[in-house]
Amino acid sequence: MGLRHPKTDQIRLEDVFAALSNPMRLQVVRVLAASGPVPCGSLLDGVPRSTLTHHWRVLREGGLIRQEAVGREYTLTLRRDDLEQRFPGLLDVVLRAAAVPEPG
Amino acid sequence: MGLRHPKTDQIRLEDVFAALSNPMRLQVVRVLAASGPVPCGSLLDGVPRSTLTHHWRVLREGGLIRQEAVGREYTLTLRRDDLEQRFPGLLDVVLRAAAVPEPG
Repeated sequence: MGLRHPKTDQIRLEDVFAALSNPMRLQVVRVLAASGPVPCGSLLDGVPRSTLTHHWRVLREGGLIRQEAVGREYTLTLRRDDLEQRFPGLLDVVLRAAAVPEPG
Repeated sequence: MGLRHPKTDQIRLEDVFAALSNPMRLQVVRVLAASGPVPCGSLLDGVPRSTLTHHWRVLREGGLIRQEAVGREYTLTLRRDDLEQRFPGLLDVVLRAAAVPEPG
């Protein structure tokens, strides 16, 4: 069973925002933006596997990440160029906004 | 009972994105950005009242709009300056992204 990834021109803005509407997923986007591709297992320590699977799916189906099998593990990559092509400037502003301190 | 509006420095990014993750709410933001304050009743024709109430609440609690009683009706206003102060550049890029055609 292949994992579903929307084509660049099929990425929907409401799905992007839904993917970004959770602090854990926003954090994953920030980490991937800073680091490049990352094995799934090295993100979000201590979070149950079913929760992780859900977050990867929402990010993947929203068009924010690619999730690809590399050997026995999945690797996550931010779709930076695809997002820039589809919604110019959006990702940069999201990353800047995510760096603003949250209320205590 | 007063309606809850987060203070500017209490607006949470994840709540902003949650508010924008629905096409109707995104449309309301676009209309308010183009028009200034609008009476609730003149937006989203043909949508059930309970659905409207829900959308206004999510937009209001997310910090995107002010909903204020004016006479016997509520008026909605986009919190453009507050959003700009809290997350500079975000609203402009959201409005530009929302103007990109959706996939058919």
